Amino acid sequence: MNVSNKIATPDNLFWPQRNSIVSATIIDKAVVLHWNDDQQSTLHPVWLRDNCCCEECLNPVTREHLLDLRDVPLDIRPSSVDIDAEGALVVSWSEGQHRSRYNPDWLHAHSTEARSQRDDQIRQWSATDLSEPPSLDAINGVVTDELLYEALVTILRYGMVRLRGLPTDPAQVETMALRIGPIRETHFNRIFDVISKADSDTLAYTSHHLAAHTDIPTRESPPGIQLLHCRIAEAKGGQSTLTDGFKVAHDIKRQFPAHYKTLISAKWCHANRAGATDYRWSAPIIGLDDRGEPLEVRLLPFSRAPLQADYKDMDSIYAALVCFMDLVNSPDYQISFPLAAGDLIMFDNRRVLHGRSEFYPKTGDRALRGTYIERDDVMSKIREFEQLRSRSS
Amino acid sequence: MNVSNKIATPDNLFWPQRNSIVSATIIDKAVVLHWNDDQQSTLHPVWLRDNCCCEECLNPVTREHLLDLRDVPLDIRPSSVDIDAEGALVVSWSEGQHRSRYNPDWLHAHSTEARSQRDDQIRQWSATDLSEPPSLDAINGVVTDELLYEALVTILRYGMVRLRGLPTDPAQVETMALRIGPIRETHFNRIFDVISKADSDTLAYTSHHLAAHTDIPTRESPPGIQLLHCRIAEAKGGQSTLTDGFKVAHDIKRQFPAHYKTLISAKWCHANRAGATDYRWSAPIIGLDDRGEPLEVRLLPFSRAPLQADYKDMDSIYAALVCFMDLVNSPDYQISFPLAAGDLIMFDNRRVLHGRSEFYPKTGDRALRGTYIERDDVMSKIREFEQLRSRSS
Repeated sequence: MNVSNKIATPDNLFWPQRNSIVSATIIDKAVVLHWNDDQQSTLHPVWLRDNCCCEECLNPVTREHLLDLRDVPLDIRPSSVDIDAEGALVVSWSEGQHRSRYNPDWLHAHSTEARSQRDDQIRQWSATDLSEPPSLDAINGVVTDELLYEALVTILRYGMVRLRGLPTDPAQVETMALRIGPIRETHFNRIFDVISKADSDTLAYTSHHLAAHTDIPTRESPPGIQLLHCRIAEAKGGQSTLTDGFKVAHDIKRQFPAHYKTLISAKWCHANRAGATDYRWSAPIIGLDDRGEPLEVRLLPFSRAPLQADYKDMDSIYAALVCFMDLVNSPDYQISFPLAAGDLIMFDNRRVLHGRSEFYPKTGDRALRGTYIERDDVMSKIREFEQLRSRSS
Repeated sequence: MNVSNKIATPDNLFWPQRNSIVSATIIDKAVVLHWNDDQQSTLHPVWLRDNCCCEECLNPVTREHLLDLRDVPLDIRPSSVDIDAEGALVVSWSEGQHRSRYNPDWLHAHSTEARSQRDDQIRQWSATDLSEPPSLDAINGVVTDELLYEALVTILRYGMVRLRGLPTDPAQVETMALRIGPIRETHFNRIFDVISKADSDTLAYTSHHLAAHTDIPTRESPPGIQLLHCRIAEAKGGQSTLTDGFKVAHDIKRQFPAHYKTLISAKWCHANRAGATDYRWSAPIIGLDDRGEPLEVRLLPFSRAPLQADYKDMDSIYAALVCFMDLVNSPDYQISFPLAAGDLIMFDNRRVLHGRSEFYPKTGDRALRGTYIERDDVMSKIREFEQLRSRSS
């Protein structure tokens, strides 16, 4: 979700040899390669030395550097270059007797324009594009690795996915989370039950309507991915809602540029002040990455702390917030759908706002059980699946 | 650690009445207050309406808004203002019959210059200022709430603290963490043992020297606070090291401004590629907050992924990194000290770099047990303790 994280596989170890080096020459201090696909790479000597993967420089088991960069002279130069019988680049160094050998596929992936474009996969959506979350069926209640991979790629693309036909046992949501990554605990517990409680310390655990919101913006880093498993769906009401906050941000930028400017800069503090804890964090409603693209949205209307701003800025800050709240709750952007027992929705809590309509506990039970993991875990699992695929292909 | 998170207590509920309103008037649409300390506040009508804390507008148990901001006309005006017998501000509104009542201390705290300055507490340090971490003794092995509060404030100030004289049982570190907040799990487990292992998947779990580093920069949000409990300290070697990354950043900014500019902008990817997982994140070595002050440092030398940058920028990116690595490992900045059995160090993993010298497993056992929590948890606990103090004072 960040352009610089899209470092191409494969690892230097992995060796299918799809690309080959036509020639390797030393020009000034650089190693210049010509590839069979007509691309050219200019490799920096410190970069090459730094990435030597011999057993002296890189621990073969942990794949961690043993070479301390501080021991590499920054004026190091290659003394000779060669292409060996397996097609690897071999570099001998001016310093000492060291020789380094590089997998051509690895070099190609790390030094040409072939880097994968993960961000291209993101699809922003409004209620015109979709009426419910993209859904996948668990045949006989089983989520295979293939199905899980499809689900994770769908989260990456749409910020949400629904798995259908899962068992309704209480352990289901934790089991599914742990197949992806470690659980992100918060002050609302490791696993939480969304049921109507008499002594609730949050509106979430009542039967009230909940406007579009993101969870736990009271922390510097709110949980990335929410898993919500519907175990019992007998009560009337309680439709689930989801809204693509990135799409709303995109459209506000075009239609209401002044509001957009306010939403990306004015800070709102969110605070949890029930009970003994006192979590607070201040950040803009729309957070951008270093390319100026949305990285996250944060909004929990019922936990907004008092605005701290100059009087003269308050008109515009409130107007921009209400504009955002209007759109994320409007039928143009928000999708509304029933959850059935056995459904598991997973959504990006820092992109997609969720909510629900009021439900009526007297008409039957309603039990959802949820937990969180991080975006990092989804990305790691996708890479792991893709690495396995590419090795077996 | 972020200026806008320093929202002043007390809550609107809390009522010691230290400040009193001398006069309240409506000027244009604003409510203007004069205080007994000669300060003046100009209060925006939407801000006042938004922060009404009557039971209709704010859930008295969860302290969450019931009022939906979208139901407040942005052109709302006060129709009359008054100061009641208890000194509270009472506002009647142009819309409907609603009346709002505000605690004067709460209003004073949220609308004057009296806001607390948490950041002023941060003390940057080098090895000239300190030779070991600020230390607190647990009398008879007991960490009282008072001692824990002192420890947390010390972390906030110095980025580190050492508690001495704790029991050495295996549950100690988890128990201490859970007194502060929920545990931040990562792909290195919930609780981890730093011991020399034959089949280690990371250099951390060997007896090797470890240069100054921060843990898990392979995630978008690395763990905030590390707790490390020394249970057995019989092996020779294995001195612990700590370095204030914020102090190094501060000094590089002054002494090597070009390197500083590179360190806050050039992205390094860190990657964990052992075993099945594949965690990666790219960010500058020094991350700044929106005021341009250091928010975090990230550096795990042995997990740096290949640099992805233009050839022409590589000289300066490598030179800046080596400058940073030289300073964080130099005796001018790095403190080195032995850990004794029963010591628990807690440090800000996003500010303070840690490391250790090589140890010699054949000379005896060495066992550290660690876990992580977040900066948020430390801040919440400090606020909680201070709230209790201020209520009992």
